Amino acid sequence: MRMVDLIEKKREGHALTTEEIQFIIKGYTNGDVPDYQMSALAMAIFFKDMNDQERADLTMAMVNSGDTIDLSEIEGIKVDKHSTGGVGDTTTLVLAPLVAALDVPVAKMSGRGLGHTGGTIDKLESIEGFHVEITNEQFIELVNKDKIAVIGQSGNLTPADKKLYALRDVTATVNSIPLIASSIMSKKIAAGADAIVLDVKTGAGAFMKTVEDAKELAHAMVSIGNNVGRKTMAVISDMSQPLGFAIGNALEVKEAIDTLQGKGPKDLEELCLVLGSQMVYLAGKASSLEEAEAKLKEVMANGKALEKFKVFLAGQGGDASVVDQPEKLPQAKFKIEVPAKENGVVSEIVADEIGTAAMILGAGRATKESEIDLAVGLMLNKKIGDKVEAGDSLVTIHSNKENVEDVMNIIYKNIKIADKAEAPTLVYSVVTE
Amino acid sequence: MRMVDLIEKKREGHALTTEEIQFIIKGYTNGDVPDYQMSALAMAIFFKDMNDQERADLTMAMVNSGDTIDLSEIEGIKVDKHSTGGVGDTTTLVLAPLVAALDVPVAKMSGRGLGHTGGTIDKLESIEGFHVEITNEQFIELVNKDKIAVIGQSGNLTPADKKLYALRDVTATVNSIPLIASSIMSKKIAAGADAIVLDVKTGAGAFMKTVEDAKELAHAMVSIGNNVGRKTMAVISDMSQPLGFAIGNALEVKEAIDTLQGKGPKDLEELCLVLGSQMVYLAGKASSLEEAEAKLKEVMANGKALEKFKVFLAGQGGDASVVDQPEKLPQAKFKIEVPAKENGVVSEIVADEIGTAAMILGAGRATKESEIDLAVGLMLNKKIGDKVEAGDSLVTIHSNKENVEDVMNIIYKNIKIADKAEAPTLVYSVVTE
Repeated sequence: MRMVDLIEKKREGHALTTEEIQFIIKGYTNGDVPDYQMSALAMAIFFKDMNDQERADLTMAMVNSGDTIDLSEIEGIKVDKHSTGGVGDTTTLVLAPLVAALDVPVAKMSGRGLGHTGGTIDKLESIEGFHVEITNEQFIELVNKDKIAVIGQSGNLTPADKKLYALRDVTATVNSIPLIASSIMSKKIAAGADAIVLDVKTGAGAFMKTVEDAKELAHAMVSIGNNVGRKTMAVISDMSQPLGFAIGNALEVKEAIDTLQGKGPKDLEELCLVLGSQMVYLAGKASSLEEAEAKLKEVMANGKALEKFKVFLAGQGGDASVVDQPEKLPQAKFKIEVPAKENGVVSEIVADEIGTAAMILGAGRATKESEIDLAVGLMLNKKIGDKVEAGDSLVTIHSNKENVEDVMNIIYKNIKIADKAEAPTLVYSVVTE
Repeated sequence: MRMVDLIEKKREGHALTTEEIQFIIKGYTNGDVPDYQMSALAMAIFFKDMNDQERADLTMAMVNSGDTIDLSEIEGIKVDKHSTGGVGDTTTLVLAPLVAALDVPVAKMSGRGLGHTGGTIDKLESIEGFHVEITNEQFIELVNKDKIAVIGQSGNLTPADKKLYALRDVTATVNSIPLIASSIMSKKIAAGADAIVLDVKTGAGAFMKTVEDAKELAHAMVSIGNNVGRKTMAVISDMSQPLGFAIGNALEVKEAIDTLQGKGPKDLEELCLVLGSQMVYLAGKASSLEEAEAKLKEVMANGKALEKFKVFLAGQGGDASVVDQPEKLPQAKFKIEVPAKENGVVSEIVADEIGTAAMILGAGRATKESEIDLAVGLMLNKKIGDKVEAGDSLVTIHSNKENVEDVMNIIYKNIKIADKAEAPTLVYSVVTE
């Protein structure tokens, strides 16, 4: 088999066989297939696409290019959730204890953040004592006992995907549905998921700018999952503005605590219920999405979800009393309001720019080496469709420095006020096949 | 300027500017642009093509990537001829003295062959004493005095093209009209041509399998030439069978001598008159193609073309007496006939396979290091459309080894006899714009 012939085959629009795709990915991982052939193939895939079988084969070839996590000692169906990325996305912090309260095992491998705000681990570390440095045995024991634990990323998972992603980034081949879908799915499968729930974001702040593009990606990933024996569902959700009110690590923990009690922002709660229903359903803990949603609302109302969050924190060394006394979370020195300059209705909140403002405060990492400040961030006081009068606070800046002119400038530039505007749809579509 | 943005621009079907193409080719030549970005761009060009301006810009950027030959000290319009490659193609040996006899300056830079048969230099070296190791000054003096000289390739011409060609070969991006056309044209222009005549071959033995593909390539090259100030014309000619009768170095020299006297194979003579007319016309030595052809026939008839060949050989140390006594050329020990096994009409002579048979005899190089045998080769006794009776010789094998079973097998496999067949069209089309 020669790589040049396989590139030509794809260039001419033919489907590659399972064996051919394994040859390519094995060769690329061990260096037999050079970057210049892989980038030509990626460009041919950009133009000629891959069929369902090829996408499934590519995903599994990447899974098999490195280590895989074995969660077989955990009882039950392990459901993982993945979001294609957004600003102020607190869903994981809410969903983990929420579904664990219904005995869905949550064995979460998580990372630190780069960009807008911290990752799930950074957020949890704003709780004193909480740590993810536990052994695989402790991790499995915790999940079996409490139904919930988080561990840091370890092992050499999907090295082919890492190498290919870096190559796509510099060869204008990122934006290809089969390549994006197989990249995401391979990571989730390598991390041990039996079933997968996907939150595909759309809008100005997201990678997929239109609902149609987001749907195409969602369908692609659901097909891959179902073709490789991992039941998969997806939600298309709005990222034309940040989700919830909080952007910043400790601020998002506080928001998660509120949401677990049904007192959080309505959009965050709604999305958590939709995603959580899919997780509960796929884990076999409800026989329909409707039944799953009813059960989730029940554990929010009766305090079991909040209780599970405490058990989770305590299980990994964290001070669970923050759940009842959130003032124990790191607090910023200054709270600075950003008053509206005119009357009207909020018509736009550019999510990624607002995320950048939070990063400048110290809530996120500009580079991998940056230290982050867990206390700082932004609280949105208004969202799209909300009426404002001049002087009303649009945003409260939580900062450890007094001079936040640069951050204010970004906020004014990226929150627009018009004569009228309507709140955007939050959940555009649920994709189950 | 970032290469990744330029790849994306082309991927989206937009035209690259002159400055952008210069940035790419300069960067690729000096190593700033890595192979993996160049191959992704080449694949994007395969799918999205380039417009006339981009093709001209790419050609000139490759010309300027290395040395260029300065022929300004040679009087007159220097016209170069290029063939896209064929088997038994003796046209250069005929055309050079033929048009020089009409005072068209022939300043030919030539190479050695790889594959089927030798290159022009190999063929000429079958004449005792002939050599191309002359200085640039001697070369220019010879052309000014005799109107004809051949020199070996020197200098670092079009390094960007060499590097890109090698990359295309392993990334399934060879078969792209803008890339093929700019590659050929850049080499001719760097070698100092003021005007260019192209012989684009089509048929089973050629790179362009159909007349339509050949026409597209011819139009592309003619447009590039005219857009960069080099008058260019092209001929689409048949390569469904070898041109002429001779395949082998000394054999082709003998065939060239015959053709210069109007006694050569009719197909070779016809193609030389069509290509020669374009060369004479572009050099300004005739005011129409018809006038040019009449003049060429005149110098063939009155012996001036043959006389010019003698002057050419003597000018570079060769024994010009071979022209009148071709038996002085290297002779093979054995002449072995290949008798037809049945009655009928020759319906197929697979050009490249027959070329391979000649190479196996020693007429061509399998690798760059191979030594070639100037005496050996094949003489076709029948061509497509010729009647044969069982026992008639199809081919005479000129060999220095007695056992030629392997060569005979290839010949029998690749010369087919049917009930009826017609001689193919030789010149399909003349492309002048």
